[in-house]
Amino acid sequence: MGVALTKLANGIRVVSHRMPHLESIALGLWVGAGARSETSAEHGISHLLEHMAFKGTGRRSARDIAESIEAVGGEMNAETTVDNTTYYVRLLKDDLALGLDVLGDIICDPLLDADELALEQHVVLQEIGAAYDVAEDWVFDLFQEAAYPGQAIGRSVIGTPDSVSAHTRDDLSRFLQRHYCGPGIVVAAAGGLEHEELVQLAETHLGRLPAAAPPDWETGRYQGGESRETRPVKEAQILLGFAGPSYADPTFTAAHLFSAILGGGMASRLFQELREERGLCYSIYSFFWPFSDTGVFGIQAATSEEDIKELVPVVLSELKQMTDGVTEAELQRAKAQLRAGLLMTLESPIARAGQMARHVLIHGRVLSLEETLAKIDAVTTADLAELAARTLASAPTLAAVGPIAHLPSAEEIAAQMVGQRQMAHV
Amino acid sequence: MGVALTKLANGIRVVSHRMPHLESIALGLWVGAGARSETSAEHGISHLLEHMAFKGTGRRSARDIAESIEAVGGEMNAETTVDNTTYYVRLLKDDLALGLDVLGDIICDPLLDADELALEQHVVLQEIGAAYDVAEDWVFDLFQEAAYPGQAIGRSVIGTPDSVSAHTRDDLSRFLQRHYCGPGIVVAAAGGLEHEELVQLAETHLGRLPAAAPPDWETGRYQGGESRETRPVKEAQILLGFAGPSYADPTFTAAHLFSAILGGGMASRLFQELREERGLCYSIYSFFWPFSDTGVFGIQAATSEEDIKELVPVVLSELKQMTDGVTEAELQRAKAQLRAGLLMTLESPIARAGQMARHVLIHGRVLSLEETLAKIDAVTTADLAELAARTLASAPTLAAVGPIAHLPSAEEIAAQMVGQRQMAHV
Repeated sequence: MGVALTKLANGIRVVSHRMPHLESIALGLWVGAGARSETSAEHGISHLLEHMAFKGTGRRSARDIAESIEAVGGEMNAETTVDNTTYYVRLLKDDLALGLDVLGDIICDPLLDADELALEQHVVLQEIGAAYDVAEDWVFDLFQEAAYPGQAIGRSVIGTPDSVSAHTRDDLSRFLQRHYCGPGIVVAAAGGLEHEELVQLAETHLGRLPAAAPPDWETGRYQGGESRETRPVKEAQILLGFAGPSYADPTFTAAHLFSAILGGGMASRLFQELREERGLCYSIYSFFWPFSDTGVFGIQAATSEEDIKELVPVVLSELKQMTDGVTEAELQRAKAQLRAGLLMTLESPIARAGQMARHVLIHGRVLSLEETLAKIDAVTTADLAELAARTLASAPTLAAVGPIAHLPSAEEIAAQMVGQRQMAHV
Repeated sequence: MGVALTKLANGIRVVSHRMPHLESIALGLWVGAGARSETSAEHGISHLLEHMAFKGTGRRSARDIAESIEAVGGEMNAETTVDNTTYYVRLLKDDLALGLDVLGDIICDPLLDADELALEQHVVLQEIGAAYDVAEDWVFDLFQEAAYPGQAIGRSVIGTPDSVSAHTRDDLSRFLQRHYCGPGIVVAAAGGLEHEELVQLAETHLGRLPAAAPPDWETGRYQGGESRETRPVKEAQILLGFAGPSYADPTFTAAHLFSAILGGGMASRLFQELREERGLCYSIYSFFWPFSDTGVFGIQAATSEEDIKELVPVVLSELKQMTDGVTEAELQRAKAQLRAGLLMTLESPIARAGQMARHVLIHGRVLSLEETLAKIDAVTTADLAELAARTLASAPTLAAVGPIAHLPSAEEIAAQMVGQRQMAHV
């Protein structure tokens, strides 16, 4: 398959997939620093540090950083999530060395200049404002906080205006030193490249990062709860969730299949019943978000104030019916979707680099296609019924933004779920 | 290159790019029906018809349509724009025949059932509500209407609640018959496929569409103007635009380079000056939207109510400076971005299918990589200065949503642009 994995002296893992027919490369650094790494005083610092990485280094101004990559037609970006900060570039294959040089420079030697920090804090405040303005995005932050109240894993990645404004140059520098450590970093690349060259370049440009292990995360404990915000928009944005398995859990693959059958596509139960049969919403789907040690399932729906009255009971009824089991045809369809998705991931350098990085972070190696296909094959309808029963017995998480006067509370939903399950077993 | 183009007896053009190393296919039907095709009474009908195509045919229920594609792990979707309705599938390579069967079925033989129509009109009303709620998207509809007032090309794709609710089964059927005609349709596919098989399947499943030419569009005339909506959100969403060239215009490539230099990436003038140097906004970029017969340039900025006061003069100053010319280094960087983007498009079946369809619709053939690269090479800094002068002399289009009390009017902006240009030539 052309996949290779090497550990550098400082603990950085370098993984690649050679795709010799490609002229381009996707290259990224996955750093184990995100909302989960932060104390409450550090809220938002991972994301702010990601911004500051682009604001100049010992060797390059902010303009130099951007120009160096774009002068060869490349693109550069970064993203901070609950458990990772990722810096990535898309380049033509001859520019691999440049890509590692720049990525290494911005994470090993960012200036963190105080004047630049003040400007960038203002940029992030605008980013927070823009995120707040999009109710369909904002509701996800409310959801995560309600699922994991009072925990780092539940805090928003972006931070609050107050928390972001409070971080100083020294705070950023300390956070960088503690969390940007070899053992927590994965370099992943896919495309027209040679692994040996990638490893050498990673050693040259990232070898100076400390070999100390980054601090452990507090284990995430799914709790469930509720977060509501009435807002004068046209559509109510509603998320309803339950506890789900972690990446490492043996039911991980079953959980993906469960979510696909419930709300993973146009043939899924939620789409067919709520949109096709009843016309109650434009957007309806389910999601499964695994983390290294915990996970959540959720359902997203956007609908009008009036339609909430019909939508909620139908959603709860569909959830309940999942505990009665799924059909063999549904399971086979969901398996076909997962299989095809895996094959298509192998054809996209960006998707493949991200998948390999995740595998290395969770499993310490890249799972083979055969191995993943075997896990998919092994899941039965009985596995899904068991997963459904366990999942839907957990405390619900409800988050909603918009005209939500007719939306029941999480407690009422929990009571209805229990009632429906009991009735189903009479 | 493995590219082939065939015209069927009814005028449908079938274009493909064989990528023998891929296990997957991207396949789409580009139909020449969109907002531009509609009379004012038909506003939103292209998009509503796109929705109804999925709601059942003579042979398949809505559920059958979804299940047929998802049972083999495929994905199906559709999109309506100003000038096209596109139906597309992502499939593994053995499922090409299924893909054409289903796509052919839904566009040749949709039931357009009246009960389903009533449900789907309700779904589209929710989609309109959701679109309205996202100010950063909604502002684009205001912009298009202000640039092309009173013309079909300026009307929103999605329609209004009133227009969408008014369309009947007969309206849809008539629109389908007039606009879903062979000469206006392109079938484009890329991935692990054989052209001959694709052509045969297209003949089988789309050969029955009429060979009559669809009605001509009214020529789009860029006019410029203003559309503002005060709304209590945190960020003001601002678009400022000018007349740009069409797809067929000889300055098309120069226009892409102009936009890239002005606001096309992190090294662009707008990003460097407004975000990096001044921290005035999180989101700032420029765009170039060509159509077959007209085009627009624009600048997008999102910023807070207070920061508008500083942002607008700086944006206008940056625009004015474009008429003083760009540096050779800027031009070379923009060229490198366009070249790398072209090479990466050739590696992505979805992007490649879309690019080929556009080429066939505009030029009647697929432009070769060499030909496009030669056009990029030929553009000079003098071309850009000339384009800038012509562009910025056109009447501005201003659209804005949010806390925009401090935003000047389009007239004031036009006056400032003239003033700045005159001063620059003293």
